[in-house]
Amino acid sequence: MNILLRATKIAVAAALLAGLSTASMAKEKVYKWKLATTWGPTLSPFIDAPTNMAKMVEEMSNGRLVIEVDAVNKHKSALGILDMVKGGQYDMGHSASYYWKGKDIDTLPFTTMPFGMTAPEQYAWFYHGGGMALMQKAYAKHKVLSFPGGNTGNQMGGWFRKEIKTLDDLKGLNMRIPGFAGEVLAKLGLTVINIAPGELYTSLERGTIDALEWVGPGMDISMGFHKVAPYYYTGWHEPATELQFLVNEKEFNKLPKDLQDILITAMRVSSYDMYIQNYHMSSEAWSEIATQYPNIKIKTFPKPIMDAMKKANDELLIEMAKTSPLLKEVLDSQKAYQKKVRVWTEMSDYLYLKDNL
Amino acid sequence: MNILLRATKIAVAAALLAGLSTASMAKEKVYKWKLATTWGPTLSPFIDAPTNMAKMVEEMSNGRLVIEVDAVNKHKSALGILDMVKGGQYDMGHSASYYWKGKDIDTLPFTTMPFGMTAPEQYAWFYHGGGMALMQKAYAKHKVLSFPGGNTGNQMGGWFRKEIKTLDDLKGLNMRIPGFAGEVLAKLGLTVINIAPGELYTSLERGTIDALEWVGPGMDISMGFHKVAPYYYTGWHEPATELQFLVNEKEFNKLPKDLQDILITAMRVSSYDMYIQNYHMSSEAWSEIATQYPNIKIKTFPKPIMDAMKKANDELLIEMAKTSPLLKEVLDSQKAYQKKVRVWTEMSDYLYLKDNL
Repeated sequence: MNILLRATKIAVAAALLAGLSTASMAKEKVYKWKLATTWGPTLSPFIDAPTNMAKMVEEMSNGRLVIEVDAVNKHKSALGILDMVKGGQYDMGHSASYYWKGKDIDTLPFTTMPFGMTAPEQYAWFYHGGGMALMQKAYAKHKVLSFPGGNTGNQMGGWFRKEIKTLDDLKGLNMRIPGFAGEVLAKLGLTVINIAPGELYTSLERGTIDALEWVGPGMDISMGFHKVAPYYYTGWHEPATELQFLVNEKEFNKLPKDLQDILITAMRVSSYDMYIQNYHMSSEAWSEIATQYPNIKIKTFPKPIMDAMKKANDELLIEMAKTSPLLKEVLDSQKAYQKKVRVWTEMSDYLYLKDNL
Repeated sequence: MNILLRATKIAVAAALLAGLSTASMAKEKVYKWKLATTWGPTLSPFIDAPTNMAKMVEEMSNGRLVIEVDAVNKHKSALGILDMVKGGQYDMGHSASYYWKGKDIDTLPFTTMPFGMTAPEQYAWFYHGGGMALMQKAYAKHKVLSFPGGNTGNQMGGWFRKEIKTLDDLKGLNMRIPGFAGEVLAKLGLTVINIAPGELYTSLERGTIDALEWVGPGMDISMGFHKVAPYYYTGWHEPATELQFLVNEKEFNKLPKDLQDILITAMRVSSYDMYIQNYHMSSEAWSEIATQYPNIKIKTFPKPIMDAMKKANDELLIEMAKTSPLLKEVLDSQKAYQKKVRVWTEMSDYLYLKDNL
């Protein structure tokens, strides 16, 4: 073989290899994303959902999609997650949809609703009952994609310094309970007070507030409320609080298909995982609290109070639904789904548990 | 540039590219796997769990791990899944762990236990209460890895032609109810009959059997039992039936780390997904049955019957636990976890549902 022919052959081989390699190298492009959360860096299990999601994405993509999770101490904007993802300062966010109901009322019902669905019921609504399509519709105007981001399970109704026996006991009570549930209770005569988390314990201890709502034993235990308020009421207002992943649509569309699939799957599994994690944490924490503080009483609001809360809730929802056709569509969809699925919940887990407590 | 130098430069470039390309190409190796299931090709949602898992794996790996799902009509060995995965005829399997309790009693409790945990409780036990480690321990002797593979949720107690009011009504009753639950009922005087699924409807219609247990409305509806047996009893024997993925350990270890991560994540999400899918299917199916057959009655076994079943169940478990220290360890772990977590289930979902049925 003369040297010219050899050089040509090598050139052809090199070109072939270059072609292959370019394709491979293009695929090996590393995407570096940033995610902003509402939560502090140690607020387990909320912070674990985005952290675990990012870890899974990095491992499954072999380092091709790396998501840096910024806790609230970094970006200082706990309730600005939607704005930052929408504006492109962050590629992703992790928060709760109901935090921006003041800006866009349509986003409210994707977290949880008083007297609404339990966690499995709500996941069934999201994934098989039209919930996902409605949520995408609500966020389309922001050019943001949205996904379930982890469920707390049923939240407790709150810590009370005194037992609540009648509707009169609620009147004039100072309670920290934010959001829509606070509006419901305000209709029953409570004074809803907004207090920063860091001051909650002292406020409850000193009687500045008579009651407060946080999450459930798993997250309440480190706040210490059980040391100063002996009545722990069961929940009615947040039966299945689903956090949320937000993704900037333009940035999502830039990802190759396999990285999009990896991201979607990691968000989905980490949201289920948080539900299970908090179930475990709540079980462990309540066991610890009950052992160390045996005087704490689990109470359920008496029926007349529950009925009054339901009535106030229904009235507020009817008013709210008038303000947006999409909100009405979502609330109607949830109501219809819940009516059907609750029959199955009763036949299956409820009647089983009734005989096995 | 003389031609020799040019050739050398090209050769160096080619070598560099070849180096890069070899690395990329090695990573691009395609793994073709086969998975055997116990289920028929249309048995939704059971068959959907491995099918969805395989689809997710293929998409996330960009076609580098392709898993062919063989339904039972292909391999003809519904209950031989463990053996085939162990022997390497299949890389993976999808079945239910309690199917091979006759071969290895240690594998029994990873599916569900009578009077045992509900789905969220059981997932919490698997992922946070030591369940996964115990399951790996039970399967280590087979050199098989095992993972949750989809939950049915609470199964119904079965379709009965006549109402069961007393323990005497159970005596001599012919019932199709396989597995451990059948052993419990046999202790109460039932005659447990094994009948092929295809003959169940006719057997129930003609009275060859008086009762049968299948799954729940979502899967029962296509069998048509509601047309011939008007009593539908709530469940006690399979409160959270978890199917199972099995993976041949040697084949798993041959996969690059990122494909292992993709596989594990896809199995995890598809198992949660099946739980939610069956929740939805059961809700829809029951609504349809109840509308079309309003005479069907939902019944719960009276307390004396339930107590007798619990007693028989406890006695059988104590006997079984004597046969294997590992089985005893697993049963003790489940019992201790259930005792603690059930308190939280009562405080949260149960008391909430009580006021919201």
